[in-house]
This record gives sequence, structure tokens and C-alpha cells, in this order.
Amino acid sequence: MSLADRVQARLDAKTKPRGSLGRLEALAVRIATIVGEENPGRLEAAVVVAAGDHGVAVEGVSAYPPEVTRQMVANFEGGGAAVSVLARQAGARVVVVDAGVGNPTGNIAVGPALSRAETDDLLERGRAGAAQLRGDGVRIVVPGEMGIANSTVAAALAAALTGADPADVCGPGTGLDAAGVERKVEVVRRALAANAVDPTDGVAVLAALGGRELAYLAGLVLGAHESRMVVLLDGFISSTSALAATRIDPDAATSLIAAHRSPEPGHAFVLAALGLEPLLELDLRLGEGSGGALALPLLAAALAILDEMATFEDAGVTDAGR
Amino acid sequence: MSLADRVQARLDAKTKPRGSLGRLEALAVRIATIVGEENPGRLEAAVVVAAGDHGVAVEGVSAYPPEVTRQMVANFEGGGAAVSVLARQAGARVVVVDAGVGNPTGNIAVGPALSRAETDDLLERGRAGAAQLRGDGVRIVVPGEMGIANSTVAAALAAALTGADPADVCGPGTGLDAAGVERKVEVVRRALAANAVDPTDGVAVLAALGGRELAYLAGLVLGAHESRMVVLLDGFISSTSALAATRIDPDAATSLIAAHRSPEPGHAFVLAALGLEPLLELDLRLGEGSGGALALPLLAAALAILDEMATFEDAGVTDAGR
Repeated sequence: MSLADRVQARLDAKTKPRGSLGRLEALAVRIATIVGEENPGRLEAAVVVAAGDHGVAVEGVSAYPPEVTRQMVANFEGGGAAVSVLARQAGARVVVVDAGVGNPTGNIAVGPALSRAETDDLLERGRAGAAQLRGDGVRIVVPGEMGIANSTVAAALAAALTGADPADVCGPGTGLDAAGVERKVEVVRRALAANAVDPTDGVAVLAALGGRELAYLAGLVLGAHESRMVVLLDGFISSTSALAATRIDPDAATSLIAAHRSPEPGHAFVLAALGLEPLLELDLRLGEGSGGALALPLLAAALAILDEMATFEDAGVTDAGR
Repeated sequence: MSLADRVQARLDAKTKPRGSLGRLEALAVRIATIVGEENPGRLEAAVVVAAGDHGVAVEGVSAYPPEVTRQMVANFEGGGAAVSVLARQAGARVVVVDAGVGNPTGNIAVGPALSRAETDDLLERGRAGAAQLRGDGVRIVVPGEMGIANSTVAAALAAALTGADPADVCGPGTGLDAAGVERKVEVVRRALAANAVDPTDGVAVLAALGGRELAYLAGLVLGAHESRMVVLLDGFISSTSALAATRIDPDAATSLIAAHRSPEPGHAFVLAALGLEPLLELDLRLGEGSGGALALPLLAAALAILDEMATFEDAGVTDAGR
């Protein structure tokens, strides 16, 4: 019997009609399969917020000035940002990673974001970050991000990786108006024209269209998968990093769970490419890992059901067997 | 400035683009408005699982035998049921109420479930239950239920209250096959024919089509509203109780939040009549208050955002003002 079947059999013995906890049961099976244990119990979680600055910000694709990246890093560290509050609420730690704040990438509208060597280095840092978290007892990692203009970078990556038209993957991000979104589409078209790249070469795509924090997070996803950690994906940007990671190691897709469906239009393309159906749909459009942190209690609940619920036999409840 | 406007202004000063926490912001405003405080902070929650037996069970409308109601009450009390686990996980207490276990109502397929006096008494018990919880510091109440055959009772109530056709509000409940659902539809048709009732008279509808635990929960909703408690609705059956309550006091609708959209087809009719959009959609079809318990962390998260997040001013973050 496969591990997934053993977990489902365990759920089927609990005092509830078969399957009546719906997606919570599927979630328990998925987590158990990822970590490789029939009854994992309580799992420690961390939100890793990687931050970076982007050369493409000069194209006026964000409602916010670039200095906000650095200001928000201080806010994450001070515990006052949304993800700080939501992670605390969920009992998860927050790890802030400076992946290149104040050191913007090249402007993708005119050329590559990063060199291949820089990209390899960021991927390696991400992998090492995952290994360190695993060593510290973390079993669930939520990739989060902060970087003014990074929804433009993610749109360019998503278009390159999925073949979607830029107009279909560009949205308002954290606050563009319609004219701003049009400008963003044009910038992404220029980026794709300036950076012809093989979409099956994940490292090349990340180097060309970049984002230091996105490359770091792709490495984090790869490392988390190698350490059998659950990767709980937040929104459009971190999901796009994960999609790039699966172009480096396709098997990494088996460690992913999608927390939240973003209203950002590119997210649907990225989720479809990853074959994931999110747990929540609450119109969050903040990033930072906020949607992931918000979904952590659902994972904890699924594991608690698996661990703590009584069986028909234990509780002396008649089982209709369906 | 209204309380809702003051809460939204408070959210707008936080370090995030305006509105970027989507439905979590709307949820914070809703809770604050219900309890009447601009920043309620952490609110204590209780799941109230009311249990009762149903004369209509003789019609073969459930996959489970009636003795399961009593067995499950023991399981709730022992902490081994799904709702016990999920409530514990969310830091909520579970209160089990025997609203008539072993004392089945009349079979609605042939006559009324309850007398008007019995119904009034159950409503009063529910109201008193809410007042006692409020006295014990509870501010959020999740109505949960257990009663073999009560999804048939809820379908009859939903049809009577909303005017929906029985075929549109009957579903598999916790485990009927297609033939079972057809039988259930016929039983509900007979129940409506045997119990002609004014749909605007909530007490009369509850008496005719009944369910002791459903009448108790309707009283609980009324009492919770009177005490400015948040009522977090679970699935089809408890939502139907709440709809009956709003036919007794229409203003009670303002205290309701829907936790989970059930796959049971009647739930959509009841939610539409209540004007509610659920927070979660996870294919749960268990009842007990399980969907409500699962959504409690979202309410806690919304309140934590309101209470704990830094403002642009506190954190020294540039506000683009959008």
C-alpha cells in the first residue's frame, strides 16, 4: 500500500463519513506524502521573505518608489508588516533575506537582469537557506517576497515560462491604474524582445528576466524539495519563482501546495502550469507571503485531524461504511 | 464617521497598499461592526454543537442509524470528533447541548415536528445559552449540529423559507446515493404538503418542520445577536437555522458571517437569502460546526491585522496613498 493510501485509510477510520472533510483530507494526504510520514503531527513553519530591487523600476511600473523595498525590510524585521502579524498569528517564524536591496538588477526592458553566475549564486544561497531552516526544525516553508516593481518581473517570467501573452499576465500589482497596467504590458513586451531565452532552461530564464529575490526563492524551493519540506506558495510572484524552479528540477513540483489564488491575472497561468488549486481565495494582492501565512492554520488543521481524531473503533460509533 | 468608516481608516493607515488585504479587511470591518468596537483585539470563540433526533429518520433518509446521534455526542464530549479537534486547534471551546437526543420529533413527512410551545422553549434555551456564553467571555459563536436525518429537516426548512423546490435543496448529506437523494426529495415534498406554513413566521416554520437542535440554534443566533456576538455559520444545516432566526428577528442577519460554502445544494439558496458570501470552499460536508471552526483563524487574523500592524507613520514607510 502506498503512503498516500495508508494516510487515506487512516482518515477513513476516523469518526466521520468517508471523504466528508473534503479538501482537508486531500491536504493531509499531500502533506504526509511530501514529508514522507504517515502521521507527521505538528510541523514547524517559516515564512522566508526575500527582498530585492529591480532596474525595471525606472520604467514607472510601480505605484511606489524603490526606497519602499528597504523601508519594508525594516518593517518586516520590526514585526509590523502584514506578513509579520499573520505569521505570528499562525505560530510561524519570519526570516528576512536581503537578496539585493539597494543593488538593482539590470533593467529587463533593455537587457538581462542578472548574469548566469549571479543567478547560480542566488540559487545556491536559496538552497542553503532551505537546508539551514530544515536543520533548525522547519518542515513547512512559505516563500514571500518584497521588491518594488517585482510584479513586472514576475509577469515577464510568467510570460516567458508559460508562453502567455504579456497582456494576459500583467495586472495592477499593488496599485497601478489602467494606464499603468498598459505601460507594464509594453515594458514586458520589450523585456521579452530584449531577452530571447529558452523557456525550458530555468536558470537562463531567471538570469534574463531576473529578480534577485525571485532567483533566491527558486533556490529555496529546490532546497526545500530536496529536504522533503512542504513549500506553501503565496501569490503570483512567489508562485512564478516556484515555476522557474520546476524548470530546473521538475520533481520539485511534487513538494508544492498553493495557499491563495491571487486576483493578479498571471497567477492563473502559473497555477495551471504547476497543476495547483489554491486553498483560499480572499482577494489578497499584497505578496510578502501573506496568503501563505494565512493558509498555515489549514495545514495545521489537516495534520491535527490525521493525528488526533478518534476512530470509529476507539469511540464506539457505528460505521455505515461509506 | 461611522464605526465601519473608522475601522477602514485604521486599516488604510497600515503599511500596505489600500485594500490589498482584500476580504480580510472586509472581515475586520464586519467583526468590528458586529461587536461595536473599533479594535476588538483577540476574541474568545465557542462552538456550540446542538444534537437532536428526528422522527423523519424512519423514512430511510440517512446513511446512518439514529443511534449514531447519541454516540457522536459522547465523541464530542470525549474530544475525538472532527469539530473537537478543529476547535482545539483554533483555541475555541466546544459546548455540547442535548436538545433532544433520544426524544425524536414528530415525523415531518406526516405531520408537525414540534408544538409551538416546545419550539418557543427551545428558542428560549438557545437565547439563554448565548447569554451564558457571553457572560463567560465568549464573543464569537459557531453554531454546530448533530442529528441523524437532520439534512432532510434542513432541506424542508430551506424549501419552506426560501420557496426553493425540494429537488433543488436536497443533496447527499453525509452519504446518500442518488436513489437516496430521490427518496429524500419525495419525503420533503410530503413534509411540505403535510405542514402548510406561513414562511414569514419563523417560529411556525420551525415548529412544523422542526428539528429540536435547529430550533435551539435559531435561539442561539437570536441571543448572540442580542449580545453583539459574532455568529460564524458553518454549513447548510446551521445556516438554515440562522435563516429561520432572521424570520423571527430580521436584524439578526447583521451579526452573521458565513465560514464555508457547503457542496450540499441547499446551502446556496440559504446563503443567497441571508446575503452572505462564505470565506472558505473546501468541500466539507460533515456539519458539527467543523467549517466554522476551520474559519476561526481567519477571523483571528483579520483582528490581528487591525490591532498589530504598523502604520506608515510608525514604520517610516513612504505611502503612495492608493
